[in-house]
Amino acid sequence: MNPSNSALLTDLYQLTMVQAYLHQSMEEEAVFEFFVRRLPPNRNFLVAAGLEQVVEFLSHLHISSDELVWLKSTDRFKPELLQYLEQLRFTGNVDAMPEGTIFFPNEPILRIIAPLPLAQLIETRVMNLLNFQTMIASKAARSVLVSGRKPIIDFGLRRAHGAEAGLLAARASYLAGFAGTATVLAGMQYGIPIYGTMAHSFVQAHKDESVAFEHFAQAQPDNVVLLIDTYDTEAGAHHVVALAPQLTAKGISVKGVRLDSGDLAEHARNVRRILDEGNLRHAQILASGNLDEYRLQSLVTSGAPIDSFAVGTAMTTSADAPSLDCAYKLQEYAKRPRRKRSEGKATWPGRKQVYRQYASDGKLAHDIVTTLDDQQTDEALLQPVMKEGRSIAHHPKLTELRQRAAEQLARLPHAMRTLECVPPYEVRIAEALQRLAQAVDRDV
Amino acid sequence: MNPSNSALLTDLYQLTMVQAYLHQSMEEEAVFEFFVRRLPPNRNFLVAAGLEQVVEFLSHLHISSDELVWLKSTDRFKPELLQYLEQLRFTGNVDAMPEGTIFFPNEPILRIIAPLPLAQLIETRVMNLLNFQTMIASKAARSVLVSGRKPIIDFGLRRAHGAEAGLLAARASYLAGFAGTATVLAGMQYGIPIYGTMAHSFVQAHKDESVAFEHFAQAQPDNVVLLIDTYDTEAGAHHVVALAPQLTAKGISVKGVRLDSGDLAEHARNVRRILDEGNLRHAQILASGNLDEYRLQSLVTSGAPIDSFAVGTAMTTSADAPSLDCAYKLQEYAKRPRRKRSEGKATWPGRKQVYRQYASDGKLAHDIVTTLDDQQTDEALLQPVMKEGRSIAHHPKLTELRQRAAEQLARLPHAMRTLECVPPYEVRIAEALQRLAQAVDRDV
Repeated sequence: MNPSNSALLTDLYQLTMVQAYLHQSMEEEAVFEFFVRRLPPNRNFLVAAGLEQVVEFLSHLHISSDELVWLKSTDRFKPELLQYLEQLRFTGNVDAMPEGTIFFPNEPILRIIAPLPLAQLIETRVMNLLNFQTMIASKAARSVLVSGRKPIIDFGLRRAHGAEAGLLAARASYLAGFAGTATVLAGMQYGIPIYGTMAHSFVQAHKDESVAFEHFAQAQPDNVVLLIDTYDTEAGAHHVVALAPQLTAKGISVKGVRLDSGDLAEHARNVRRILDEGNLRHAQILASGNLDEYRLQSLVTSGAPIDSFAVGTAMTTSADAPSLDCAYKLQEYAKRPRRKRSEGKATWPGRKQVYRQYASDGKLAHDIVTTLDDQQTDEALLQPVMKEGRSIAHHPKLTELRQRAAEQLARLPHAMRTLECVPPYEVRIAEALQRLAQAVDRDV
Repeated sequence: MNPSNSALLTDLYQLTMVQAYLHQSMEEEAVFEFFVRRLPPNRNFLVAAGLEQVVEFLSHLHISSDELVWLKSTDRFKPELLQYLEQLRFTGNVDAMPEGTIFFPNEPILRIIAPLPLAQLIETRVMNLLNFQTMIASKAARSVLVSGRKPIIDFGLRRAHGAEAGLLAARASYLAGFAGTATVLAGMQYGIPIYGTMAHSFVQAHKDESVAFEHFAQAQPDNVVLLIDTYDTEAGAHHVVALAPQLTAKGISVKGVRLDSGDLAEHARNVRRILDEGNLRHAQILASGNLDEYRLQSLVTSGAPIDSFAVGTAMTTSADAPSLDCAYKLQEYAKRPRRKRSEGKATWPGRKQVYRQYASDGKLAHDIVTTLDDQQTDEALLQPVMKEGRSIAHHPKLTELRQRAAEQLARLPHAMRTLECVPPYEVRIAEALQRLAQAVDRDV
């Protein structure tokens, strides 16, 4: 069993509610939308991601026989529910913003229309998938924007929150513009380019740093990137220079060095000089070690001669904002629009669409959220993805989504591309939607 | 394929290094240890967790035929490496602190002794598993300590970082003393008690809150916990009181209500009064909504009449410290102790043991880290777990580990049980270890 597609990746209350709905024959059409309530700190925009995994989850939705046996064994559930679960298939419609789309608070990025019990049951995993990848893509995009087109590689698996987090962080960061990942299984599963060098333990396992470098080069002649900070960064660079002629004689060239500690800008300048004076002008410098978008920006603007970066923990955990204030809310049931009015958590009712307007220079100008039937001529961001349980949209490749994200980032107004927090992007609530909300409130 | 046990859950550089080791026949015994360098902010101690998943990963370590085909297809790896991976099995020894043990920086909680390529290859996933569960157990324990023995339930799956994070957070928080989880699959996989109520959408799907409550009670007569804040918390409580006699007539009693928004302490006091005056003294109050240990403490100390809590995102993402500064380091190769000396990242060499001394009142007094052969009479915290690839230890049940964690927490000095940061617990580096480090440094 691959638990990533289990229908039991859900909260108990979903099963409890489904049981109550079945009991009352409340199986009419429900409309749920997923949206983010507020931007996290340090974010000017969000990048939608995770839709492919949602579609995969819904396409494979079912309860295994083992799961059914276990559910029965708990003595918690009525035969009616167990029968329903035994035949569980996703039969609903899904509309969504394509992955890589930039979006803002209160804009639905996914709408699910399905019989109420079904639309309810899937809430937890749908949120789990969209929250995580959107959060990671949005964080990774910030590094991409400040990196000055220097490649960035995901090194984050070891401190990602489990295996799936590591794999999906590799995917979401690649979508947002990273050049690749160190995670081998992400290369296999998603076709993401994989990168790697060596660890300090490799150097330590040898009696001598130079011998370690030589052994590494002989085993990996096509990809000689040497980690030079195990004992002393500049001494390490000198060892590389001293070793290079012997390697050249064997037809092996040093592709680069990695710095992983200390003042990276200063070490990079020293190391660049040592390499240049040692006839290794072509050898590149890769920097890693607790990097995030702020340290990246400071390294790039300082003019440090670093050619590429590896970013790990800060990106893969979205360390400064490890969750989104997101929601998957009932907006309509049995053709009647609904809204939640809990303190601080009120929502806009009904099925909605998001339209985007651009300025004359092609940059984003403002968005409009309105009811689905209040059709506008601007670009509509939510597009059909699944119909009656079947995927209808062209299933874009990850490289196409990455291209879309790049195009979207290029259309951000300049101020939003920096790490400074700027005034919120304008998201207008159209009159049609405001009138609907008032009508719903009068009706309660 | 269950990717949670794939040997390709690793960084590319591990494969690269293994290839170099095989090329040089460097397959002698290596000793790696996992430890945390520094406490995260807002932590006085850590709770070891994740060992069971590490043992499972190592016990099942292999490369599937699909994975092997893919590795070949990349044209990156030499036949020698592919052959090695084809026959991959874990054959090493593992010693570790039992899950639930309290520990501190610079104390190894896991030691792996295996041929160098093997011990290197598994680094990434071992760190990924220990970092996450230890981080979660350590965070969850703080809520447990301030909750005044009131039950706490994990509601965090929807904003956990993927499926595995949600499942393992349920496990780690239960180990640390939570009463259970809402995650159904965690109930099935780990035998954790599952809890659930209803969502706002359930109330909204009905025309009327009282009808929603009635439908819910009829479908779940044994577990009537009603969410009363969808429109107005106090009005919701009055609806419950008004409905109760009809339910009683059908033999159904209201077990409790859930509050999920607003000023929880004030709402709890109002709701308690309404329930008491409405003859529902037995009905309990469950509070949820962006809770963490600080809000829990303030609710508990305010004397708010809340009977139990649900904690989600803050715990399941360890929001204030979403990673540990942890490392898995080579400490010895071919019988020679090693240490890393990178700036700010120096480590203690050799295979080590941690001893704990207690004060006369049974509370923790200080720990001693020393070389494995410097045997002491105090309690040794690292114990054998696997020998030559086979699990040798009694495999404790999760409930036993939970009991161990509770006993450990009870032995914390009082000041360390609060949310205040106190001066660091004393971890002494024994003379034998200091001498070894000096000898290693002289030797480089």
